[in-house]
Amino acid sequence: MTDDPLVIFTPSGRRGRVPAGTAVLEAARRLGVDLDSVCGGRGICSRCQVSPGIGRFDKHGITVAQDALSPWNAVEARYREKRGLAAGRRLGCQARVMADVVVDVPAESLRHPQIVRKRVEAREIRLDPAVTLRYVEVERPDMHAPSGDLERLKAALRDQWGVEAVADLRIMQRLQSVLRAGDWAVTVALHAPGEGAARIVEVWPGFRAAPVWGAAVDIGSTTIACHLANLATGEIEASAGAMNPQIRFGEDLMSRVSWAMMNPGGAAEMTTAVRDALAGLLASTAAEAGAAPEDVLELVVVCNPVMHHLFLGIDPAELGWAPFALASSDAVEVAAEALGLGVHPGARVHLLPCIAGHVGADAAAVALSEAPHRSEDLVLVVDVGTNAEILLGDRRRVLACSSPTGPAFEGAQISSGQRAAAGAIERVRIDPATKACRFRVIGQEVWSDEPGFDASAVTGICGSGIIEAVAEMRLAGVVDADGVIGSADAVGSARCVADGRVWAYVLHEGEDRVVSVTQGDVRAIQLAKAALTAGARLLMDRMGVERVDRVVLAGAFGAHISPLHALILGMIPDCSVEKVTSAGNAAGTGARIALLDRGARAEIAEVVRRIEKVETAVEPRFQEHFVEAMAIPHKTRGYPELSRVAALPEVNFGEGEGRRRRRRA
Amino acid sequence: MTDDPLVIFTPSGRRGRVPAGTAVLEAARRLGVDLDSVCGGRGICSRCQVSPGIGRFDKHGITVAQDALSPWNAVEARYREKRGLAAGRRLGCQARVMADVVVDVPAESLRHPQIVRKRVEAREIRLDPAVTLRYVEVERPDMHAPSGDLERLKAALRDQWGVEAVADLRIMQRLQSVLRAGDWAVTVALHAPGEGAARIVEVWPGFRAAPVWGAAVDIGSTTIACHLANLATGEIEASAGAMNPQIRFGEDLMSRVSWAMMNPGGAAEMTTAVRDALAGLLASTAAEAGAAPEDVLELVVVCNPVMHHLFLGIDPAELGWAPFALASSDAVEVAAEALGLGVHPGARVHLLPCIAGHVGADAAAVALSEAPHRSEDLVLVVDVGTNAEILLGDRRRVLACSSPTGPAFEGAQISSGQRAAAGAIERVRIDPATKACRFRVIGQEVWSDEPGFDASAVTGICGSGIIEAVAEMRLAGVVDADGVIGSADAVGSARCVADGRVWAYVLHEGEDRVVSVTQGDVRAIQLAKAALTAGARLLMDRMGVERVDRVVLAGAFGAHISPLHALILGMIPDCSVEKVTSAGNAAGTGARIALLDRGARAEIAEVVRRIEKVETAVEPRFQEHFVEAMAIPHKTRGYPELSRVAALPEVNFGEGEGRRRRRRA
Repeated sequence: MTDDPLVIFTPSGRRGRVPAGTAVLEAARRLGVDLDSVCGGRGICSRCQVSPGIGRFDKHGITVAQDALSPWNAVEARYREKRGLAAGRRLGCQARVMADVVVDVPAESLRHPQIVRKRVEAREIRLDPAVTLRYVEVERPDMHAPSGDLERLKAALRDQWGVEAVADLRIMQRLQSVLRAGDWAVTVALHAPGEGAARIVEVWPGFRAAPVWGAAVDIGSTTIACHLANLATGEIEASAGAMNPQIRFGEDLMSRVSWAMMNPGGAAEMTTAVRDALAGLLASTAAEAGAAPEDVLELVVVCNPVMHHLFLGIDPAELGWAPFALASSDAVEVAAEALGLGVHPGARVHLLPCIAGHVGADAAAVALSEAPHRSEDLVLVVDVGTNAEILLGDRRRVLACSSPTGPAFEGAQISSGQRAAAGAIERVRIDPATKACRFRVIGQEVWSDEPGFDASAVTGICGSGIIEAVAEMRLAGVVDADGVIGSADAVGSARCVADGRVWAYVLHEGEDRVVSVTQGDVRAIQLAKAALTAGARLLMDRMGVERVDRVVLAGAFGAHISPLHALILGMIPDCSVEKVTSAGNAAGTGARIALLDRGARAEIAEVVRRIEKVETAVEPRFQEHFVEAMAIPHKTRGYPELSRVAALPEVNFGEGEGRRRRRRA
Repeated sequence: MTDDPLVIFTPSGRRGRVPAGTAVLEAARRLGVDLDSVCGGRGICSRCQVSPGIGRFDKHGITVAQDALSPWNAVEARYREKRGLAAGRRLGCQARVMADVVVDVPAESLRHPQIVRKRVEAREIRLDPAVTLRYVEVERPDMHAPSGDLERLKAALRDQWGVEAVADLRIMQRLQSVLRAGDWAVTVALHAPGEGAARIVEVWPGFRAAPVWGAAVDIGSTTIACHLANLATGEIEASAGAMNPQIRFGEDLMSRVSWAMMNPGGAAEMTTAVRDALAGLLASTAAEAGAAPEDVLELVVVCNPVMHHLFLGIDPAELGWAPFALASSDAVEVAAEALGLGVHPGARVHLLPCIAGHVGADAAAVALSEAPHRSEDLVLVVDVGTNAEILLGDRRRVLACSSPTGPAFEGAQISSGQRAAAGAIERVRIDPATKACRFRVIGQEVWSDEPGFDASAVTGICGSGIIEAVAEMRLAGVVDADGVIGSADAVGSARCVADGRVWAYVLHEGEDRVVSVTQGDVRAIQLAKAALTAGARLLMDRMGVERVDRVVLAGAFGAHISPLHALILGMIPDCSVEKVTSAGNAAGTGARIALLDRGARAEIAEVVRRIEKVETAVEPRFQEHFVEAMAIPHKTRGYPELSRVAALPEVNFGEGEGRRRRRRA
């Protein structure tokens, strides 16, 4: 009927007429407006708060009267008294549309809000997690129409939320006492990752106000990072990182695979180690968020294929030789309980799909975060860790490979190397004339040559520091194009000292500690960057290009290196320095996206199927590229000349998304 | 094309033309003929054996030439040499149709054969188990088109068998070594109970010739029975029974519920007891069948609601008071591993649905076996155990209730009572004139007054024995209509002895053992039969009938009582003695049907929804009927007069299906 009042929702602009007396929540539902509710319109959860407008709305051509919504009612009054309600706010389930009205839906009342990220180029995250809470009122049992308590709970979910649900034995064992404790009203946590019936994860008596949590986990060869998100808001409220304890079985992936093959029970030992470490991180992040580990109801895990197999308790032997067969390449969902993670007994762990035997779920997560498959221009995404995951593509075509860079870029296997933590040299400048250097360490704002610098706090050099050091040594002529320390005038400087038959360059000489770059360190960096370059160049060959439009450096490490020095070393193909950006821990971000938006899981599954995989280990050209790329800078096609990069103005690379997290860790 | 050869399959009579050269197995598939295959037509499994005819087939109007099928080939020759092939048999996957032919499919080559049962009136069982074996050949990994081993196995199942499958973590952990051990050919056990993807339960290298097993389990309050079926043939190859160890927590259901309520941890203790007992039976039946417990891949369990909850680890407290709310009434499927049954780690346990808080999955199983919902005439099905489950109905309408008969009918709480085992008196005759008795005991063919009877072997009296004894005592005038022992002339006989202030009737006086029927025993039988009668009469009231067309006595006990004596006691409504039949352990049979035919699970779920439940515990008329039914025989409407039944000729009740099984147990 045209006499029905008109409702206009802002900011969506959706509008339509509803019968007078329709609750705003119901009007929103009918008009397809994204208005949240956990209690199903019972005035309990307050998730459906709205702000009605009053006065003239020229843009919409209507004037809204004072009494366009029904008067403030007892439910709202009680809610305001007990929990507070901001001025001008109404509960959408209580306020009824009486006349034409403009209703504003604040961001926090959206069911699926967009989570805005700090980086301009980063995609927004839609909040649509697999685990949601639903409040339901369940029919009491009637012995003359007997049915199980579970069947009546399922009927309530069907009738009140349109959800088909299933429950496991644990829920059956708990359900009867919870239903009675809640006087037949309960809050249900549902897990619905995709199509099909939702699974009842937990049931609490009455209305549950406390949040439930999900964990986004990135298991790297060297470090494990865990981020705890409030599944109702999508906010990461606690993060923690730890060394991967598998390191004691081997620094790099292949030595761990070998260890598993050589030692009976070795794989199982590594499995237990990584699971225990993650359980510890889950416990500490839960504590930081003021929650219990049992409040963690879902996990999304990303990692490389060897970590993937070891985490799942699958022998990684097949990943140690061609054809590098994965046990399973699709996304995997397993019960957290089977992995002994100490979280909620009904929690599930979702692992993103692996791209290939050497290109894992971590690369899939990077693809999810950086979305090369949606890019208009040709982007090279490099996730630098112990292995480099490399993606090259645009919305037409995406290629992927993995390259064994080793842990040098992370400061490991470097004589004075250390993790990026307080005391680590992270920035280096060398005067080409005097060969003298100045540096900055993590934890101090001033450079080493500035007043107030505390030299006693210097403990070593981290990954980004060693990159800068070697690049600056090259610019200053301390090393030559072949990576040999000891040009005539460099050797003459006090900074260069003999280290047996070869030379080392001293960055810092403290009272009890010398931090230097040895010939071995330069070699390690040369090998790492040659592997990285060879992988990227292989993808460029396959794509038939000599240049890329932009470069995204991912990985905690990628957040800290200077693009200028990366270009000097020839770590990345030639392109404008301003077209080199840091994505921070893109794999972790991809895990977070998959945790918060179940739709993203289907998206990445489809993208992974489309990605063309290039296996570096058996590609003869990889070796050719590798040898060529040892020089600093190397002569690889498409990579910068030293003369060009040496002339570039220094770029302040800024703070990536990853930095704060890493600092905290 | 009409030139294509005509194939006629017998005994199905299906016929059609197929291109010359089509394999018989493929022709069968196209014409919808039920011809089995596990290896998918590779000449390995020999399940598709057929017998081609030669000569004139007047009925079909064709003459079959000697060379109507392609000549014997190398695969068949090798198979015959290695494993043998009966004369005239061909492998359907190897023999090709060259000209018009009549092909006989022997019963053992049917994919879904009908299993014929001994009882004429019993339904046949269609063999279509949820767990089946499939042989597949899996593509080898290719690093240039990387995919997981699991994904290639799934693709093989899809391509070679049209099956969508999923796998859990355990399969992922095993798969790689199994695929390589089998040189990329494996046998997969699939679990597909209904719609949706099949679950991979196990994977073995190469072709698995050994059978896989399923268990049909009936957990009664007093006894647990376990039958092990070969899932390929449907044959029960081992059976075992044991006392339910929960008996030490309470003889009847309500005392166990009370025990759980009064003792913290009491329910858990009973849960462990019953699971351990079942694990023991599974181990012993597997051993008897020459298999390992791990070869048991599926279980179907039936039991009453209290046993159902205790078996699943659900506190049964709510079943102890109105409204007798079940935690879950629908069929339940849980991992056997979660119950600690010691069978295959991927095995599932399927529990049939419960009908109501007092009418359990055992009654649903009886309904499945006896199919009152398919009956043209009005049938009363009584499953006599510690509780009596009673079904009344026909294809139009089925009613159900449960009645607390107590364990007297099973020989428990009877002064000389014992289980139906060797030495128990099971048949009794009393001379009305002399009051002398003769009897027969289990384990001896002769009666006690015949030559060769071994009096020293008498150990007690079982349920059917006590029924006959009390009925015969009534016919002989040893007890009166009120159940009091001590008519004037009976007391005068040497058989009646004073037992304090009341009398007992002595059946047997051995050297070290007296077996007698005390006044208390008669009272226990009166109470039990009154409960049974009151329940059945309540259903007859609700149905609005005074007579039933036939009576089916189910339960191990029901297999042994004489209908005549049941009529004398007034245990069952008046009807012709020949219309009283024994269904043996119908609950166990229902479990077997659900185990062997997954379609039956959907059938019973639908029937259970339709069954009208009558709750005896709160029905005032139940008490009225109960009091009325105490007399022997009672005056309940529709129940026989003593004069009528006393005049009936003795009927040889015969051996029920349950007898052999019970003997073995």
